[in-house]
Amino acid sequence: MKHLTVADIAKLVAGEIVGDGSFCVTGLNGIREAHDGDLTFVANAKYEALLAQSKASAAIVGPDVQCPSKHLIRVANPSHAFTLVLNHLLPDPRLRHPQGIHATAIIHPTVKLGENVGIGAYVVIEEGVQIGKGSVVYAGSYIGHNSRIGENCLIYPQVMIRDAIAIQDRVIIHSGTVIGSDGFGYVTVNGRHEKIPQIGTVIIESDVEIGANVTIDRARFDKTVIGEGTKIDNLVHIAHNVIVGKHCLIVAQVGVSGSSTLGNYVILAGQVGVVGHLTIGDGAIVTAQSGVSKSVKAGEQVFGSPAQPIKDAFRTNAYVGRLEHYVSTIKDLKKRIEELEKKHS
Amino acid sequence: MKHLTVADIAKLVAGEIVGDGSFCVTGLNGIREAHDGDLTFVANAKYEALLAQSKASAAIVGPDVQCPSKHLIRVANPSHAFTLVLNHLLPDPRLRHPQGIHATAIIHPTVKLGENVGIGAYVVIEEGVQIGKGSVVYAGSYIGHNSRIGENCLIYPQVMIRDAIAIQDRVIIHSGTVIGSDGFGYVTVNGRHEKIPQIGTVIIESDVEIGANVTIDRARFDKTVIGEGTKIDNLVHIAHNVIVGKHCLIVAQVGVSGSSTLGNYVILAGQVGVVGHLTIGDGAIVTAQSGVSKSVKAGEQVFGSPAQPIKDAFRTNAYVGRLEHYVSTIKDLKKRIEELEKKHS
Amino acid sequence: MKHLTVADIAKLVAGEIVGDGSFCVTGLNGIREAHDGDLTFVANAKYEALLAQSKASAAIVGPDVQCPSKHLIRVANPSHAFTLVLNHLLPDPRLRHPQGIHATAIIHPTVKLGENVGIGAYVVIEEGVQIGKGSVVYAGSYIGHNSRIGENCLIYPQVMIRDAIAIQDRVIIHSGTVIGSDGFGYVTVNGRHEKIPQIGTVIIESDVEIGANVTIDRARFDKTVIGEGTKIDNLVHIAHNVIVGKHCLIVAQVGVSGSSTLGNYVILAGQVGVVGHLTIGDGAIVTAQSGVSKSVKAGEQVFGSPAQPIKDAFRTNAYVGRLEHYVSTIKDLKKRIEELEKKHS
Repeated sequence: MKHLTVADIAKLVAGEIVGDGSFCVTGLNGIREAHDGDLTFVANAKYEALLAQSKASAAIVGPDVQCPSKHLIRVANPSHAFTLVLNHLLPDPRLRHPQGIHATAIIHPTVKLGENVGIGAYVVIEEGVQIGKGSVVYAGSYIGHNSRIGENCLIYPQVMIRDAIAIQDRVIIHSGTVIGSDGFGYVTVNGRHEKIPQIGTVIIESDVEIGANVTIDRARFDKTVIGEGTKIDNLVHIAHNVIVGKHCLIVAQVGVSGSSTLGNYVILAGQVGVVGHLTIGDGAIVTAQSGVSKSVKAGEQVFGSPAQPIKDAFRTNAYVGRLEHYVSTIKDLKKRIEELEKKHS
Repeated sequence: MKHLTVADIAKLVAGEIVGDGSFCVTGLNGIREAHDGDLTFVANAKYEALLAQSKASAAIVGPDVQCPSKHLIRVANPSHAFTLVLNHLLPDPRLRHPQGIHATAIIHPTVKLGENVGIGAYVVIEEGVQIGKGSVVYAGSYIGHNSRIGENCLIYPQVMIRDAIAIQDRVIIHSGTVIGSDGFGYVTVNGRHEKIPQIGTVIIESDVEIGANVTIDRARFDKTVIGEGTKIDNLVHIAHNVIVGKHCLIVAQVGVSGSSTLGNYVILAGQVGVVGHLTIGDGAIVTAQSGVSKSVKAGEQVFGSPAQPIKDAFRTNAYVGRLEHYVSTIKDLKKRIEELEKKHS
Repeated sequence: MKHLTVADIAKLVAGEIVGDGSFCVTGLNGIREAHDGDLTFVANAKYEALLAQSKASAAIVGPDVQCPSKHLIRVANPSHAFTLVLNHLLPDPRLRHPQGIHATAIIHPTVKLGENVGIGAYVVIEEGVQIGKGSVVYAGSYIGHNSRIGENCLIYPQVMIRDAIAIQDRVIIHSGTVIGSDGFGYVTVNGRHEKIPQIGTVIIESDVEIGANVTIDRARFDKTVIGEGTKIDNLVHIAHNVIVGKHCLIVAQVGVSGSSTLGNYVILAGQVGVVGHLTIGDGAIVTAQSGVSKSVKAGEQVFGSPAQPIKDAFRTNAYVGRLEHYVSTIKDLKKRIEELEKKHS
């Protein structure tokens, strides 16, 4: 690692020095993992005790964090500032990416590749594909007929992109992910499920990141869409004709059924399921393992299976948790009524 | 697209023309996505308003659908008829499939390939495999020792089929799916989990379709079976020795534990879990996210985790939803009893 | 199969013969699948009736199992003993593994391979990788820069191991699994989710087995760990910085969120979700589909979403199941109070 002083770092992140600017940082690490000499970061005062115990010598901290025993660099957004320092110090990860076109890549003569495209070993690229400048496709990935990949995309090993898919710029796709498999659609005729052709496409807008072993099905007609800036974790399933808005966060193992629409800045926590043909409004939050069976309004937070507004779900859960108490109250009341009845008999 | 008149289409699907048979359709599309000149379809009268608003100029409709502003073709099963028209008009998707044997495919000399088999780039086929006529294996797929694939199967890129697996005819397998990985079985000896050999097989019967990134484990002994005509969505897990009947629908992210048996025409909705050694009867339906912990009778519909008959589950959920009301009733009764008691003291 | 007598088998497993030691076994099978002449096994007396009905001619049985009609071999742990016999009789599965280095494998000149390493077709191994003696990498797998694989590991086709991952000895990884993809971490700046670099690693300790299509993310800093002897089923997601202890069992479709820690001998049943930054103590058991939202003590068994100690969860479920009864009691009490009140009015 290049060595930087606290003052160098403060300059890099436009932060204020609290401590010795000449102190030389020897590593970067998380607060729990840090060693003597390391720089770490702390977002808010809640973690002050943890910082005091940490072996880190310096820290990028939020406006209200104090720690007299460390050299501090104070900024508005410590996590972001720390990422800036990391990106400055780490060897450029692009140095490891495939450079040029590997001799074993099988690329149809009609394929158009932009400048500085890197294609790894055993990649297969079918007829009519276009890949924009600076994009990288790692070993063993497959890109089907007429698909388009924009600029500066990063496709990890063994990603499968079927035919006629549109991927915009700066998209990252992790290994094992399948884009454009057929939607799950059948019509039952005389007791047999006959396949409904899935002739639509998938559009992945710019700055999307998609985790490992995700599946995003192509539309029956028209398109399945992942909106700009949305981030998708591992093992997520997005069914045909789903429209995901911009800047959503979709955590691991979520499943969204066919033709549902997510607004912008929607958060679906881990293992959430969404049934088909629903609308989830802008900024809505669905908590982990919830099952969304009705549309959710913008800004609403829901929980449970079936999912309810979170206040209702918590109130209901609280009543359920006190059932033993209510039952003993009922038994007590019954006894007292019996006593009263006796007096009247 | 080849242009067809309403009369041409009516002939193709054996339907009745309601409107102008000479009208020339310029595209095919879903009811929401349709443009001027397009043909769409509507199954029943519930969607009449949507049809009236659609930009489509013509529609294949069910017996009870009216729409004076469009050219209609009336049939018994509009979705099926629409698929017939699509298949008639679309370029044959087989034109894109691998043709012949790619020079880079590594095929053991003992492998037997039927007529017109297509094998893509970088496919690896081990000793003793047989593949029936008309089947297609896309780039990067792997077929293990002694496995058999029937006729007219379609194996998408990067499917992994382990050794000694039997796949019948017209089976479709999407990318990233693994057939025949070891079942999850261990015996704990002196605090260590020792692997139990998984020496059975997997049988995929004819006309099965399996989505992307599915896992179907081989049996400990004997076989794991996916019955004829069953359709499996993405990211489903089928454990060792599971027997899935014929014509089932298994939606995304379902997990079926070891040695459970599904009858015919069973529907497991998204994210359902089924514990091991159960039986789910013919035609049973398990609703989304349910956890099946007891066997389910034929024809029964169950819901919840643990799953109950759907009427019981709904009634219980209704009681739970009214708990606040019951609790206030209990408090009211308590007060009234206290008053009565006072009068008697 | 080599033919063995009951006496041969008894010697192999150090068991006691009950019946005819000279009887020659012709096959090995599960109790339900066995044919005439087969050897099967039965752990305890609960399955005596099943054994009596089985077509098996001989059985390895636990101390308390009786069955006069079969030739028995009595041992302390029948399942383990049966595995010993299977491993003795089956052709060595290593005969099918890739032998030597396939001509199409692309191996960087800096890679160090131990003795008797087998590398399949179209494997890609990047700069700086080390693989210990006796390990096997099947066709189409990818191993990233500077990763290390220990001795006698078994990597099935199309496994993706990213850069700088450490895998110890005798680890088995099934097809489609991704080790070392980026953790799901972003910091939101001006309404855009900016990627947080994930610069840690993954350590897979010895004797771990990982199923098909699993994802294990690399740490933000430091390491994600799968402890010695732990077994992971298919389609499981392990997030960044998770520490899984030794000898855990993690069943299919489980998801563990970032920075959670599992002790030793933890069991997570199918489809369980664990939220981030929790601790699950040694020997804890989480039942299927549960959602763990609070830390779990050593030895505790929890159930439900959110998960509770199993006794509490069962008691609550029982109260919920009797709600109809309680509500009718409330209605009855109300009537009786009204009657009492009338008498006083």
